[in-house]
Parts: sequence; structure tokens; C-alpha cells
Amino acid sequence: MNVRSNTDIKSLIRSIPDYPKPGIIFRDVTTLFANARGLRATIDELIWPFIGEQIDYVAGIEARGFILGGAVARELGVGFVPIRKKGKLPWKTIGKEYQLEYGVDTVEIHADAVGRGDRILLVDDLIATGGTATAAIELLQESGGEVVAAAFVVDLPFLKGADRIAARGLKVHTLVAFEGE
Amino acid sequence: MNVRSNTDIKSLIRSIPDYPKPGIIFRDVTTLFANARGLRATIDELIWPFIGEQIDYVAGIEARGFILGGAVARELGVGFVPIRKKGKLPWKTIGKEYQLEYGVDTVEIHADAVGRGDRILLVDDLIATGGTATAAIELLQESGGEVVAAAFVVDLPFLKGADRIAARGLKVHTLVAFEGE
Repeated sequence: MNVRSNTDIKSLIRSIPDYPKPGIIFRDVTTLFANARGLRATIDELIWPFIGEQIDYVAGIEARGFILGGAVARELGVGFVPIRKKGKLPWKTIGKEYQLEYGVDTVEIHADAVGRGDRILLVDDLIATGGTATAAIELLQESGGEVVAAAFVVDLPFLKGADRIAARGLKVHTLVAFEGE
Repeated sequence: MNVRSNTDIKSLIRSIPDYPKPGIIFRDVTTLFANARGLRATIDELIWPFIGEQIDYVAGIEARGFILGGAVARELGVGFVPIRKKGKLPWKTIGKEYQLEYGVDTVEIHADAVGRGDRILLVDDLIATGGTATAAIELLQESGGEVVAAAFVVDLPFLKGADRIAARGLKVHTLVAFEGE
């Protein structure tokens, strides 16, 4: 397996100051994904802890988690389950509300997306406070799934989302970390 | 390459009557993507005409096109460019408005996403009238890119979107077709 170093991945992520609001630095993975070697290294590094593990589904969070999730599922030889914003899935859904800084948001999955005891790897591009990921995990668990691990390209350790998810008993795998400034 | 027949892919797609409105049959690919063999066959069949072709980027249309696009780019060994709804990309964008049945919608890409002469394969789950795909093609062309081909899992031939895109000189590759009823 042709795994490249995390340094290469980090250097391909574009940092955008004051987006989406003043004081926030947005970590933009589109520049990483646009780079052929960057995309390959990212997928390779995301999957390696899970090769040979028993995983039944990869679940990806809309929308950047879809870019990674389809490729990770395909590489691991398993199916892909989309976790979507409210009202985007065409069949019967179950949903989970979660708190934002101001207001609430909802994630949904199809009611038949996972079955009892299915072992799931959750994938997204970035873990911050972990609000969306936690809602996704709870939703998959309520469907009977066992969420065994979560993988993210970027960790923002000062926001402690990875710690919160690890505290739920999941194996958490992240590739690069950015501190506040 | 372990390519499966189109019949298997078609049988894994769920048809949902009267969604999103009465009289429309929605072709739901989530059941195809959730199936490990279905997902693998889909990616394999999408890429085979383009193996050995000179492609610089795979562009995927938000959101289901992301699930396919990341995997197709990774398999072809090229970078991935997201085509997003208005206001979703964090850096400088260029956009293209297009007509819906009622009203307009806009697709956007990052202004630096593709360069002059870059050869692009466009990917989405389904081609209907081709409105979104055509806007995406024009947007990529305005950035200097050469959109050489477009690949879709599902074609709805009675809506003639594939014909419209082929008339622009693109190679159009689709895996399964559904007629109106």
C-alpha cells in the first residue's frame, strides 16, 4: 500500500481565515481532494486501521463525507450508507436533532439502512466539536447498528470532538490536526 | 477487473412511486450503494471506458455525485472537483444559474478548481433532462476545462438529457436505463 506521510496531506489543505465568520479558520479539503496523490494518500491512510477488521458499512456524513465515504467503502469492499440533512432522503427515514451554536439541525438515515448488529465505520472530512458526528452515531445505534469506529481527515483537538466520540467507546482515527491559530 | 452485469445494478436500485411528487417514480441508488457488490460493480462499470484515457479531474455533482465521484477519481488515479449548490464552497467561486421547472438554481465551483486544458470526467448518479449536468459542463468550460465525458449510473432516456449532453461533443456513459413507467 502506497501510504504517504501526514505532512503531505496537511500541506495540501487550504486554510481560509475568517470563514464562515471572523476569527474562524476554515480548513478546506477541496485542494487536498483535487490533488491526485493527495486524494489517494487520504483514502489509503483513512482505511489502513480497518483493513481486515469486520466492518459491514461505511457511513458518510453529507456532503464532504460522501466524497470520502464512497471511496473508503469501495476500498474496504463494503456498502455505503449516506447520513443526510433533513428532507433529502426519498424513502422512510429516522432522524436525530442536535444542537448548533444557535438553533438545531437534524441528520437522517433511511429506516432500513442498517440492521441489528451491523458494524459501521463513520467517515467525515473534519471533526470539530463532534455535534454532527455524535448525532450520526446515535442515529445509527438506534437503528441497531454498532458504530465501531470513526475516521476523519482533520481533527481540531482544541474543540475536543474526537475525545467525546472516543468516550463513547469508538476507535477514532484522524490524519492531521490543526490547533486554533 | 471484476465487472458485473448491468442487470444486477438495476435490480439493486429502489423505485419509489410518487416521489418527490405524484406521477414521478424516483430511482433511489442508496440501496445500490449500500450493497457491497453493487457499489463495487457500479464504480468498476463507471470507470472502464476511461481507463487509459487522459483524464485530469473527476468532477462530481452534489450530493449523490460525491459518493461516486470520490471513488471514481481515486480508482482512475486523478483528483476530484466538487460541483456544489450555491454558497457551500468556502473560497472564491464562479457560478452558473440554470432553469428548473419553476424558478432557477445555481451550481458553483472554486475559481481555481480547474485550469486551462484540464480534461474532465463529469459524474453523477442520474441523468434526467440534463439541466444540472449542462450547467456544470458550462461552468467547467468557462474555467478553461475540457469536459471530455460524463458518466451516470441511471439514464432516463425519455427525458433526453444524455442526448443533449452528447450533442455538446461529450462521450456519455450510462449503466442502466429506466423508461417512464
